[in-house]
Amino acid sequence: MTASSQDVLGRIDGEKESYLDELKDYLRIPSISTDPTHDDDVSRCADWLVGKMRAAGLDAERIETEGHPLVFGQWNGAPGKPTVLFYGHYDVQPPDPLDQWRNPPFEPTVEGDLLVARGATDDKGQSFAHLKGVAAVLAERGSLPVNVKFIVEGEEESGGEAIEAFVRADAGRRLACDAVVVSDSSMYAPGQPSLIYGLKGLAYMELRVHGPNRDLHSGTFGGAVANPANALAQILAQLQDKKTGKILIDGFYDKVRPLEDWERKEFAALPFDEAEYKAELGVEELWGEEGYSPVERAWARPTCDVNGLWSGYQGAGAKTIIPGSAGAKVSMRLVPDQEPQEIAELFRRHVERITPPGVRVEVISHHGGSPVVVDAQGPIVDAALAAAEDVWGKRPVRVREGGSIPIVATFAQVLEVPVLLLGFGLSDDRLHSPNEKFNISHFYNGIRTVARLLDRMGELT
Amino acid sequence: MTASSQDVLGRIDGEKESYLDELKDYLRIPSISTDPTHDDDVSRCADWLVGKMRAAGLDAERIETEGHPLVFGQWNGAPGKPTVLFYGHYDVQPPDPLDQWRNPPFEPTVEGDLLVARGATDDKGQSFAHLKGVAAVLAERGSLPVNVKFIVEGEEESGGEAIEAFVRADAGRRLACDAVVVSDSSMYAPGQPSLIYGLKGLAYMELRVHGPNRDLHSGTFGGAVANPANALAQILAQLQDKKTGKILIDGFYDKVRPLEDWERKEFAALPFDEAEYKAELGVEELWGEEGYSPVERAWARPTCDVNGLWSGYQGAGAKTIIPGSAGAKVSMRLVPDQEPQEIAELFRRHVERITPPGVRVEVISHHGGSPVVVDAQGPIVDAALAAAEDVWGKRPVRVREGGSIPIVATFAQVLEVPVLLLGFGLSDDRLHSPNEKFNISHFYNGIRTVARLLDRMGELT
Repeated sequence: MTASSQDVLGRIDGEKESYLDELKDYLRIPSISTDPTHDDDVSRCADWLVGKMRAAGLDAERIETEGHPLVFGQWNGAPGKPTVLFYGHYDVQPPDPLDQWRNPPFEPTVEGDLLVARGATDDKGQSFAHLKGVAAVLAERGSLPVNVKFIVEGEEESGGEAIEAFVRADAGRRLACDAVVVSDSSMYAPGQPSLIYGLKGLAYMELRVHGPNRDLHSGTFGGAVANPANALAQILAQLQDKKTGKILIDGFYDKVRPLEDWERKEFAALPFDEAEYKAELGVEELWGEEGYSPVERAWARPTCDVNGLWSGYQGAGAKTIIPGSAGAKVSMRLVPDQEPQEIAELFRRHVERITPPGVRVEVISHHGGSPVVVDAQGPIVDAALAAAEDVWGKRPVRVREGGSIPIVATFAQVLEVPVLLLGFGLSDDRLHSPNEKFNISHFYNGIRTVARLLDRMGELT
Repeated sequence: MTASSQDVLGRIDGEKESYLDELKDYLRIPSISTDPTHDDDVSRCADWLVGKMRAAGLDAERIETEGHPLVFGQWNGAPGKPTVLFYGHYDVQPPDPLDQWRNPPFEPTVEGDLLVARGATDDKGQSFAHLKGVAAVLAERGSLPVNVKFIVEGEEESGGEAIEAFVRADAGRRLACDAVVVSDSSMYAPGQPSLIYGLKGLAYMELRVHGPNRDLHSGTFGGAVANPANALAQILAQLQDKKTGKILIDGFYDKVRPLEDWERKEFAALPFDEAEYKAELGVEELWGEEGYSPVERAWARPTCDVNGLWSGYQGAGAKTIIPGSAGAKVSMRLVPDQEPQEIAELFRRHVERITPPGVRVEVISHHGGSPVVVDAQGPIVDAALAAAEDVWGKRPVRVREGGSIPIVATFAQVLEVPVLLLGFGLSDDRLHSPNEKFNISHFYNGIRTVARLLDRMGELT
């Protein structure tokens, strides 16, 4: 490791506790962007973050949008040096099912090396590591070796329309930079840093099947009228082949870029313990699209998952009704070069084509994001890989990821600079699940990696 | 009409208001037998009914069971005369969805000729008409022309195990009678009294599909593991052919008694306005098993309906998860000679056979009831038909019904007497639906019909 960061790394070691306490404060704010009843919390969270950026010495502000506010911060005191843009999001997923949490989701709890709370890893913990890494250098030296910018959004879990619009409208003026750093993902394995070069896109749909104008007695009317819940099951069953796992929507695979040989080789070479993976998930077997390994399916093949279902009577015991309606949330994860709007339209047409007689179906398109494969070459990327190796002691592996970070595709397309997907989380962080956690040691290493990244990039001529 | 009932009919006209007020008190008790949190209300409702029977001059008692209590009442002051057993139930369906009620479900509301409340027609209103008919005769004359017994259960909506066990154990001792009168059904049309000679049975099942041990991020894990909600849809879709409406469970139709020619003729001769029927339900077309009319499907062909569905995220907006589990309530309406236990077992085997890889399915059998076709011949039946004609001015038509009244099959089998299914409700009474109602004029005619029935049967030698 070059000597140049020892001062900062020493300070980071000295301030660990206060960094953790600040992160806990951040996690106590229930900034659930998908739930309108939490709008005030989301707004409060944005203000909290602006305060932290200013305290760190950044010029920070809250940018109002049609949705939740963006938080923008910058330090431009290194003329002639590269500029790094750090992206993150301060909103979180809903915490339900609440009864499965060991502790309240918004009361961060330390369990050994784990910090347990909604948003711990996705993305408050990882994004806050960016800020503390920059803050540590500024506090130690009063200046940075490069220019930095932060853009932190509050709608990543609910569509990200605001930042999408902002980046396109800004067209690289305020957001002008030489590289974007995104930490909203996992490392391939504990101790194994990873540079993610591919992300899936997303098309999130909702189906509402309408039958009779009320719940009906299933004895008096059963057999005479179509049942919306039966009809919904028929529709959902015709989205995916039950044997091959292929998605049956016409044209769905037309623009799917096949896995390249080098990718299949590199993925196959990565350590993957299927028995351990199944045990951790509590399933007896893995299942998915025929002809691909679990890693290939999760990272580089499109999927179609029912995320929610509801109809009729869900209580204890029995209620003999034909429900008046039934609904489902269905999301498709996309790979290059599928486009969310086009897939949403193919989905709509498919559903209209297979809707059974006697019911009416509403197809609602919630939001989407484009899949992306980024270029992971060049001196800036090398600096990032070196910085990660400095801290973690291992060269990052190149992997893809099944998650969707819609804005990454937009950054790559609009800013035309390298997008560095350096995740500090782990695959068992239970993001979107009860008892979400972030390893505290990874939080600190994330801070160190950012500090090293600034020095490594400052050395670039 | 023979003169003999004029005295009683006059009294009934005079006491209309008090009869209605008493019924309202009855309906205010939320005796929801499927929901354990209402056990105290169910118990309170049984006590209320015992009090009303005693006030009418019956020897009444509460019979404890393993479940909800039975209410038994009798008057045996007419030696040598026939004995009529009146059956009903004092429990009701759950009221949800609550937000669709115009008024609170347990605050009976009069809207013109309609009394709106949960249980108004199913079965408090109809059953209470039995009691008030008997009470009116006793009040007017101090005696009855026949002996009467009442057995009113509190578990009709939740399986009816208690009365089932009681009738079989009693084996016609306390319940010894010459005929059973059941009013828990509808008239074929307004002003058209009906004698129902066939009822469907029921097999009520619940499916619980288990996948991963928690909700998973649909990006990180999508494609790698089976999704329980997708799997549930596949299972439900394989219960019924989406084109022909035939139920696909192996052996399901083996014991189905075909419709007889005279039935198809009589059903076809009944007035049925399909356009009006569709308009009232708010559907554009009717749908069901290929090759049968809507009336035949609803009355005399077995069905399979999803009554409830649940999985994952049901809130506003989007949540990108693979749910850890998914569930459904599924009930099958049966026709002679299908047997619920056997059908439940066929269902279980079918589900086990079609369960997709990667998930585990629990099949729970909630309750069942046997289908029945009763004999509608003989002097007692003629007396009942005549009594109905006396009051409604029209000869009852012979029909079947899609609803399940499991105890009817047991009465027919154990007591070996005619079971008279004389319903006073209407098909638009919205039973099991929000805003359930009972026509107040039908309540009064029900009381009159019972009074006439007693006199008509008293005339039998």
